[in-house]
Order: sequence, then structure tokens, then C-alpha cells
Amino acid sequence: MSGQGLQDQAVIAGIAQSRFGRGLEETEYELACDVILAALADAGIDPSEVDGLVSYSIESSDETAIGKAVGTGELTFFARLPFGGGSAPASVGLLAMAVAAGQCSVGVAFRSRKRASRQARTWTRHGRGGEVAVGEEFSRAYGLVRPTDEVAMLARRYMHEYGATRDHLANVALACNRHGSANPAAMSYQRPLTREMYMASRWVSEPLCLYDNCLESDGALATVVVSAERSRSLRQTPVYIHSFAQGLPRQQHSMVNYFNDDPLYGPSWTCGRSLFARSEFQPQDIDVAQIYDAFSPLVLLSLEGYGFCKRGEAGPFTEDGGIEIGGRLPVNTSGGSLSEAYIHGFNLLVEGVRQVRGSSPNQVADVESSMVSGAEAVGTSALILRK
Amino acid sequence: MSGQGLQDQAVIAGIAQSRFGRGLEETEYELACDVILAALADAGIDPSEVDGLVSYSIESSDETAIGKAVGTGELTFFARLPFGGGSAPASVGLLAMAVAAGQCSVGVAFRSRKRASRQARTWTRHGRGGEVAVGEEFSRAYGLVRPTDEVAMLARRYMHEYGATRDHLANVALACNRHGSANPAAMSYQRPLTREMYMASRWVSEPLCLYDNCLESDGALATVVVSAERSRSLRQTPVYIHSFAQGLPRQQHSMVNYFNDDPLYGPSWTCGRSLFARSEFQPQDIDVAQIYDAFSPLVLLSLEGYGFCKRGEAGPFTEDGGIEIGGRLPVNTSGGSLSEAYIHGFNLLVEGVRQVRGSSPNQVADVESSMVSGAEAVGTSALILRK
Repeated sequence: MSGQGLQDQAVIAGIAQSRFGRGLEETEYELACDVILAALADAGIDPSEVDGLVSYSIESSDETAIGKAVGTGELTFFARLPFGGGSAPASVGLLAMAVAAGQCSVGVAFRSRKRASRQARTWTRHGRGGEVAVGEEFSRAYGLVRPTDEVAMLARRYMHEYGATRDHLANVALACNRHGSANPAAMSYQRPLTREMYMASRWVSEPLCLYDNCLESDGALATVVVSAERSRSLRQTPVYIHSFAQGLPRQQHSMVNYFNDDPLYGPSWTCGRSLFARSEFQPQDIDVAQIYDAFSPLVLLSLEGYGFCKRGEAGPFTEDGGIEIGGRLPVNTSGGSLSEAYIHGFNLLVEGVRQVRGSSPNQVADVESSMVSGAEAVGTSALILRK
Repeated sequence: MSGQGLQDQAVIAGIAQSRFGRGLEETEYELACDVILAALADAGIDPSEVDGLVSYSIESSDETAIGKAVGTGELTFFARLPFGGGSAPASVGLLAMAVAAGQCSVGVAFRSRKRASRQARTWTRHGRGGEVAVGEEFSRAYGLVRPTDEVAMLARRYMHEYGATRDHLANVALACNRHGSANPAAMSYQRPLTREMYMASRWVSEPLCLYDNCLESDGALATVVVSAERSRSLRQTPVYIHSFAQGLPRQQHSMVNYFNDDPLYGPSWTCGRSLFARSEFQPQDIDVAQIYDAFSPLVLLSLEGYGFCKRGEAGPFTEDGGIEIGGRLPVNTSGGSLSEAYIHGFNLLVEGVRQVRGSSPNQVADVESSMVSGAEAVGTSALILRK
């Protein structure tokens, strides 16, 4: 089979999301079941037809618990994805592979997370939760404690190399907020951010200020994947899974990338190369992109990694509303992780589907193709979706 | 694509294993890297060619750490499998899917585990490690505390329904020991078990005695998966991945299966139906089988689930050396989890490959096809391998 093995063979036929916020009453398990049932209803498929289930390795609800409560059929495909924020596109991509190979026929991908309601994690120089992972013994002790500290260093390097400025980071935060503040489902709905507010906000880890960091949110989302053939008889306009890729560079060190000869060559480059090699669409053909934005600099790095602009040119690419609706490439049109909700990128995936359906609260006109990426700086994944 | 989508498109081109034992000096990470390098050397492939990596969701070494130490190339496919003991066949199956779809070209599946060296886990009525999983609130409080307690109840039900006896369970333990005691790599090498020893041993959870429970072991194993085309230029006789399936029945409750109308209808049935539907070989054609044996009754249930005998007939099937070398269906020819080592079933997978290569320490004559299964009673998977 060629690299085009999966092209347009499977579709996203259903989507759903919970409310987003802090302190939601439901458990992660209840939220997961609710959105899975809602996504199946959206597709017009009975839960008993579900035979594939994919989520993140860190998802708290297992296949057995979900299957019982939702009333799935016999499952013939199930898998998990590592790397948290890198996983939303891959959860759909794995189901596309499974559907194409005949391993399952109705797959559900989901993510449920009550990060905002969890007890604050202990971030210390001795590691996350007291255990230092392989490689972290060389960084935690020197103050790279939280992910934001690690990404701050990566951002500093980027700014140093290419003359990018805080105004460029602000462009990302402001674009997400412009979209999120106009999205009734977003946590930032009707809460506009200005450049002045951005510049006056407190440091979280210099050069990253409060608005460079994603929201802390509770919420859940799900998508339903079926074969292109099956989708013809379903309720919604099918959204074709045109291209799927994952990427982790050689010698990658999560978030900081010390061991890579070029620390600014991250997972987006590896992933982007495969993604477009398998696609009829090239970067200049993509109408709208959902780019993982746990931290604003990841959007700049990803714009370059996926080839929307050249190396070092992402800063200027964001100027003059370049990544807002009406700009060169509308990005994170529901508000993204910075302004809609932070559910490990799964809301970016669902918004990518809405843009192709034509049902986004911030709809881009005449969308033929939509890209969705997972997190730059960890093992990641991406999808090109098409009409 | 039909259900035969993956048939013989990918092969297992390399295998390796560490020493098995208690208190190995290396860490799980070091063991993982060692066996991955050894499996690549066995295949004759340079580590820099590796672009796919799959392991269990509970594997302690992540893709980033492995990639750096082993010196993989850029990874373009990575995923994890839930359910521990259900996962070894699926780890290879996912790589076969990825290779067939063009998502990667050289995939490594591995599992490293120092269970025997870990601090004893706290099994209490309040759950594993203090957290009660969904569903367990209805069983832990009544004394179903350890997996062996849960499987003991399932075994009791099976014995009640079909008149199976402790002699049938002993047949499984004795078959594994006969093979393991003749395998220099096995923890039971030259340590023969007799029926008298079995019957005189202490209860662990009635009706399961000491020898119905797997070994506690440290160790690691790895396999290398490439396309059938690529394998022609490699060092080893290719072992074709002929059929791959996963299975989790409706309303499954791990280990005990309360919620299923028929508690003895487990994952092997779901998995077996797909496995043989995608295969040119039917159960009667399989020359040798590696069947997950964390607990001896799982082998009886699996023999029925995969269709090697009819429902209720697995007990008699094991009589007169039925599952030993020279019998109806040689099972767990390296000693399995009961007598070689318990590495969450990955050693069964590697032995399944050796049987097709013709290099097992207990080689069955003229093997054309070999089946490998994951754990019955949890979400599981299976492979048919062929020459």
C-alpha cells in the first residue's frame, strides 16, 4: 500500500462537546459517556454499533467502563495515544486506519478532562508528583519545573534566533481571543482581550505572560469515525479524513529539545512532512487551521513546521490579523486552548470538523480543507480534513 | 477495504528477549533499550531506520526516552495498548496496520517489566493503590481483591457449569512446566512439576493453587515489524502477520464478567471470531498456540473462545497430553507465563514467532501457522502468524 493508503477512506460523521468551564459537577467518566452518546446522536448511529474506541493513554475512563455505560457493541479495535496534547488528531487517525483495514466499522475517539477541578499538581525541582522521568534529572534541578518554564526557554531561543517579539506572541493570544470571545461555547465568550491587557499582565514564566498560557478547564469531547461508504447514509455531511500523520524527531527532548542539533526543529516538522506528502492539499491550499496552543509560542513554531511560512517568518505571518478570520490563514477559530477551553487539544479537532461542515460559530467562507494539529514540542499528530 | 485488509502485508522480522528472573540489575528502561537493539540486530536493521514504536499504556519508558537512547529515526507512528496482558498481539497488530497504511516502515513493539522487583502492591478491599475503579465498588468490598480472586470465581463458575476439575487445571500447569523445564531461558528450566506437587501446593485463591498462578518475573522483549516486501532483503525468515484481531464483549466486566448475560462468554470469543474471519487458517489448521496463561483457567476458556474445541470441552481437550508437544494442539511451548516468565504475555508472542521460524527450544515439527493470544477476561487481542 502506498503512502496514500488512508486518503479519504474514512470520515468523521459525528461530533459533540460538553460545557466548558471550571468546577463542572459531572465526573470525567460521566462527561465522557455524555459526549460519546451525543456524538453518536449527531451522526445518527446507535451506540450498539460502536466497535472501536480510542483515547489518550492518560484518559481516566477505560474501555470497559465506557462500553458498559454507553452500551457499545463488541469492541474489535481499541488503542491509546501517548503525549497528552499531541494526541487528538491521532485518536481519529488511528480509527481511520482501523476502519480502512477492516478492524472496526464505527469508531469513537474521545477525551474527558477535569483539569480545572483537580487538586493543583505539585511541580517541584524533584519532578512531577515526586518522580523524575528519564532526562528530566538534567533540567528539573535547574528550575525547568512546569511545562510553561520549558516552553518559555524554547520561546526565548526562538525570539533570539529570529527577532520575534512579545507582540508576535500577543498576536496569537489576541487572535484566539477574538475568535473565542465571539464563540458562545468558549470560556472567553464576551471577554475581549486587548494588547494593553496582554502587555500589563503578570509573568508566568518570562517571556510568557498570563495570556500566553492556556485556560484551565473541565470538559469533554468526542468524534465518530466511519468508512466513507457508510457515511453516505448518515445524518451529517461527511468530513473526510484526507491525510493523517504523527511525528517525533530524532533525539527529541520533550518541550525543550536539548538533544536535537537544532532545538527549533520540533515534532511539527516531522509530522508536517508526512502529512503533506500524503495529501492533495499543500500548505498554501489549507483554508483554516486549528493549531495546538497550550502556549502561544507553539503556534509560531507550528506555522513554520507545517510549512505555512518559512523558518523564522511566523512572527510577521501573524501581523495585521494574519491568523484571524479574514487573514492569510484563520487559526483556532473557536478560540483554541487559549480562549475556548483546554481539553488537551480535542476542542481544536472538533472545531476543525465544524469548519468543514460549515457550522462553526466563526465560520470561514468556502472551506474545502482544514488542518488540525496536536502539540508542538512533544510527540504529535495532525490531520487534513476535507469536504 | 475488506476484512482481509492486513493479511500477510507485514511481517515480524526480528525478535529479542532479556534474561528472565527476579531482581535483575537493569532498570525497566535499560532492559527495554537492550531488547530493542537486540531485536533490530536480529532483523539486520539499523536503529536509525526505526520510525514506529508501540507498547503498553502502562509501559514505564516513553517514546522520547527510548528514541534518544536507542537512536531511532524520526518516528512517524506511535501508540499504546490498554489492558496489560491483552496487549502483546495488538502491539504487533497496530504496527502491521501502520506499515500496511504507509504510516511507518520499521516498527518496534516492546514490553519491559520488573514486576518481581517492585514493591509488593497493596491489594485491599479499598481497591488497587487506594483508588477503586468504576465497577469495582461492587466487588472489592466483598473480597474480590486481587486478579487471582476474580479469576478464581470465574474458574469456579466454569467448573460448576461443565464439570471441569482441578485435574484439568493441573493439565495446563503441567503442560507449561513440561515445556518450560526444557527451555534454558525459562525460570522453570530443569525444575519439573508433578501432579502430586500441584495437588499438595497451597491455595492462593480457591480453586486456584500456587501453580495455577503465573510467575513473578523481571524481563523485557521486543519484536520488529516491516512490510512483506522489505523483509525479503533481511536476515531472518519472515514471519507473516496473517490475521490480527482485538476483542472486548458487550457489558464486559474485567476478570469476572458479572454484567454479561453469559459470564463465560469472554473476550476470546469476540476476538476469535474476527481473527478467523480474516484468516485462511481455521482453528483446526493451527499447528501451535501460545495462549495467555496468567492463570491456568484462562487457557481453558481461551481454547473454547478461539474455537479449538466446543464450549465446555476444554477440560477433556487437555487430557492425555492434549496441549503438550505431540498432542492435539501444543500450547505455550516455551513454558508461557506459568513456567517461562510473566512479562504480560510478550514472551508468548516471541515464542509464537520462533515456532514459525523453526527455532523454538521446544520446536513443533512442520509449523505453517501459529496463534498467539492475549489475556482472556480483559480487553484482548490475537494474531495468526504464518510461514
